[in-house]
Amino acid sequence: VSSSDPSTQPLRADAQRNRDLIVRAAREAFSKVGPSVSLNEVARRAGVSAATLLRRFPSRGDLIAVVYAEKICQYVDAMDAALADPDPWNGFRSYLETAFQLQASDRSFADVLTASLPSAPQFAEERRRAARALPLLIERAQAAGRLRADFVHQDVALLLIAVAGVADAMRDVAPEAWRRAAAVIIDGLQVTAGTPLVDAPTTAQTYRAFARERPDQRWR
Amino acid sequence: VSSSDPSTQPLRADAQRNRDLIVRAAREAFSKVGPSVSLNEVARRAGVSAATLLRRFPSRGDLIAVVYAEKICQYVDAMDAALADPDPWNGFRSYLETAFQLQASDRSFADVLTASLPSAPQFAEERRRAARALPLLIERAQAAGRLRADFVHQDVALLLIAVAGVADAMRDVAPEAWRRAAAVIIDGLQVTAGTPLVDAPTTAQTYRAFARERPDQRWR
Repeated sequence: VSSSDPSTQPLRADAQRNRDLIVRAAREAFSKVGPSVSLNEVARRAGVSAATLLRRFPSRGDLIAVVYAEKICQYVDAMDAALADPDPWNGFRSYLETAFQLQASDRSFADVLTASLPSAPQFAEERRRAARALPLLIERAQAAGRLRADFVHQDVALLLIAVAGVADAMRDVAPEAWRRAAAVIIDGLQVTAGTPLVDAPTTAQTYRAFARERPDQRWR
Repeated sequence: VSSSDPSTQPLRADAQRNRDLIVRAAREAFSKVGPSVSLNEVARRAGVSAATLLRRFPSRGDLIAVVYAEKICQYVDAMDAALADPDPWNGFRSYLETAFQLQASDRSFADVLTASLPSAPQFAEERRRAARALPLLIERAQAAGRLRADFVHQDVALLLIAVAGVADAMRDVAPEAWRRAAAVIIDGLQVTAGTPLVDAPTTAQTYRAFARERPDQRWR
């Protein structure tokens, strides 16, 4: 973040207030509507004009960076904690539970995480750390004889999509129900399982799946 | 189906041809777009006028009844076969695999099955049979000590939603990948599993989740 970034300049009180309203509205809109929510929708929820929103956040990516900073940190912290866990299965499982939780509470989380939003370069380092840590987590849990041997890192994406579908569908009627699907899935990952898996999708394929709803980075 | 139903009258060759085109287009449109696909979209895919479609199928439900007759039969047949299986776990598991397969190949399948499309009274008897058979299937597999004891029939809906989400997201990039999620889930249902589940949603809640995309029964 360079010093010419307007978001780092001190703001007058009314400008700061508008900024807070926009960030709060965007957090809700991204999590409920999705990352392709329109400029006008965010402005309407924030109660500011489209011109005010554009002045403060010239592109969608500028707003995404602010909204997701905390969640991306939580995700990377969960990986660090999992790697530090002396019980490899417990570490892997705790990491996956955090990932499910982050995705269930925000349907755009995996999109941001998998960089299907390329104009959020602020998270490039976090993405690299996560990409390095995940294979280690999987290998440790498999070497300990607890995680099924046919599990690959692309399965994390598949299972995030599975849990996110339940969370989306049940959000208004039974907001905790996704935890049942998540618990069944975690139990199905243990080495006691016995159903052979079909070939895994490639990494590129899973990225394309998340990118299906890739929004235009310019506001419209 | 009464004898005054126009769909049972013999048709002239060109009318029969149009009817076949409409049914084929609707099958594709329901499975890919969803049950709320517009009249104009179905007509466009069929290459007929909206007036022709409306003359043949005055409401959405008339077309749904024709398109889903075969799939609903497959579902009910899978339940009958499962109940007749001497191995209760194998029966339950085969039934669930068929349900996953039907849902993965057609995103509207569960909507039709759960009667969130109320104007398809043709399937009322099949729905009643399925509603009677499912608890029996679950009880048998639990009594045999193979299906986890905390599994309830509402979980079938949750898990269909989970698998459907993966199938939808991966359809264009890795169309078989949903089978990995399905296999993990099936393994997680076995009694060797150990993660306690949160409370199940009620039946009404799961129906409301499927009904979120409930289309207007009139064409628009």
